Amino acid sequence: MKEDLGKQSIESLGEFGLINHLTAAFNASNSSTVFGVGDDCAVIVRDEATYTLVSSDLFLENIHFDLMYVPLKHLGYKVISASISDVYAMNGMAEQVVVNIGLSSRFPLEAIEELYEGIQKACEHFQVDLVGGDTSSSSKGLMLSVTAIGKVSKSRISYRKGAKTNDIIMVSGDLGRPYLGLQILEREKSVFLANPNIQPELAPFDPLIKKQLMPEARKDVISLLEQLGVVPSAMIDISDGLASELKHLCAASKLGCIIHEEKLPYHEDTMLLASEFNLSPLTCAMNGGEEYELLFSVSQEDFLALKGNPHFTPIGYFTEEHGIAQLMDQSGSIHEIKAQGWAHF
Amino acid sequence: MKEDLGKQSIESLGEFGLINHLTAAFNASNSSTVFGVGDDCAVIVRDEATYTLVSSDLFLENIHFDLMYVPLKHLGYKVISASISDVYAMNGMAEQVVVNIGLSSRFPLEAIEELYEGIQKACEHFQVDLVGGDTSSSSKGLMLSVTAIGKVSKSRISYRKGAKTNDIIMVSGDLGRPYLGLQILEREKSVFLANPNIQPELAPFDPLIKKQLMPEARKDVISLLEQLGVVPSAMIDISDGLASELKHLCAASKLGCIIHEEKLPYHEDTMLLASEFNLSPLTCAMNGGEEYELLFSVSQEDFLALKGNPHFTPIGYFTEEHGIAQLMDQSGSIHEIKAQGWAHF
Repeated sequence: MKEDLGKQSIESLGEFGLINHLTAAFNASNSSTVFGVGDDCAVIVRDEATYTLVSSDLFLENIHFDLMYVPLKHLGYKVISASISDVYAMNGMAEQVVVNIGLSSRFPLEAIEELYEGIQKACEHFQVDLVGGDTSSSSKGLMLSVTAIGKVSKSRISYRKGAKTNDIIMVSGDLGRPYLGLQILEREKSVFLANPNIQPELAPFDPLIKKQLMPEARKDVISLLEQLGVVPSAMIDISDGLASELKHLCAASKLGCIIHEEKLPYHEDTMLLASEFNLSPLTCAMNGGEEYELLFSVSQEDFLALKGNPHFTPIGYFTEEHGIAQLMDQSGSIHEIKAQGWAHF
Repeated sequence: MKEDLGKQSIESLGEFGLINHLTAAFNASNSSTVFGVGDDCAVIVRDEATYTLVSSDLFLENIHFDLMYVPLKHLGYKVISASISDVYAMNGMAEQVVVNIGLSSRFPLEAIEELYEGIQKACEHFQVDLVGGDTSSSSKGLMLSVTAIGKVSKSRISYRKGAKTNDIIMVSGDLGRPYLGLQILEREKSVFLANPNIQPELAPFDPLIKKQLMPEARKDVISLLEQLGVVPSAMIDISDGLASELKHLCAASKLGCIIHEEKLPYHEDTMLLASEFNLSPLTCAMNGGEEYELLFSVSQEDFLALKGNPHFTPIGYFTEEHGIAQLMDQSGSIHEIKAQGWAHF
């Protein structure tokens, strides 16, 4: 069924290598299947002009979230935001979600109500409908599996694979804040564990922490791109850090890229806090997960419609050199971009 | 947001009560959402003549399966079969599946390959396409979340809620074998745990064990109903035992039912083995889960097209008495049907 990997381990394959390895021998047999494994969503025929988009994500306690500092209401909001972000990443609009939940007996009803309050808040905010789900006890911990369903006009879909040489690479919003929010939460957790009498000092960092705990999927960007008449040639959402997502776009489009460090957009909080943690803002942007900003490319022509728009920043461009993702630093030196990402293995 | 349940616990609500409680305050805001929580699938607009069906199920180690006697290849087959069964239960055809998998470091690559071999075998057998999924490490055990996507003609969809008084209740195949298969596996597990030198004697029970380990979703029944020109007035798949599913149909259709014990279809293996386990075949049928047979109702008129067909057995009819599900035993006495089901809380 599959190529012989000898003694290769799951860890060495990594998440995406594992998925590719396991699904390599699968063939599609339905004409309604337009695109399967390998993008933010699966693409299924809807009607003559429209595709249905489907994406599904796991959220596991102590792997993806730590209930020591993640309130359940925020978790509910975040899992919806993170899941529908994959639909926006195909330039589509999310319409439905299905939420499967497994929970151990340590959770009282009130805790699960709190989780669903967050889910409801996100559903109302993003105008998506909760249409089903499975609920079960688990032998340990809390686990969620969220499936997002949406639609996109056939003429407006953006795959990861569509970038062309010299297309401008752009990013919505700013980068690095969720990563710093996580550093703050982890630091205060360590302080608390060392001495439970010390109260965590979180208030001054509220905006950064909120970016981590309640990330906003960029539905507004999809509407804005439509108003501006722009279809990204390739797009992905930043869930595993800029470096990892750039590599995905390069691999899928069979291109390379050059990113200009000086162009990367940072919020002033990121500049201030990064130095407090002895981190460079670049590290926060490249390796920080859970941004849910959109990383996309446009043709030189479409770039004219976006140039100067405060919602978007051009950060580089695609090159012909397949698989070579590079960063030009502020001195003009070139570095290879290595994806650390959020490897869950 | 929700009615006050005071100190009510998750256990006392049960799975379906919990879902209803948590989702009661959610409203749909998209016109494409036709039907949400409360049937085998969510129903979404596809095109003028067709709906998209979506269902998602959790499968958790030591809750839904025991790897002591469930080979991973069989597990892979079963999770696909169980998930697409929900699409057939709406009289639709499954076309795609998305498989999310969380696994702890105790699983080597070979184990996961075996799991995916079973998934692939089921995908090929039922002609469904694996179109995506999320893969993650877990802190403990194996967990799967499978989303099935299908379609159904608007004129052929069967909801749980559509039964009418005097509609004939029918079931495909025979009942009770998966339940007995599970008893055999549990017995041999106990024998093995008591004395690991004793080899389990499974061979004589192969067909029963296969019914438990590799259940067949009844895709063929959906094709057959279409050929016969019959649309069930209500339908559900038997995943939690006949008693539980009858109660779901009665509740959704706001009716009662009478089932004739003497009509219930049993395989001869069920008759033989039930007595060995000191069980009545009725217990196996009523409380046995994971049959994946289809339980449905038809009008008196449509019944003429199915009467005498070896694939279907009429077992009773719907009555006006809302919520009262009854069994008439072979002596003519009436008993209330109580759902034990497969409560995972």
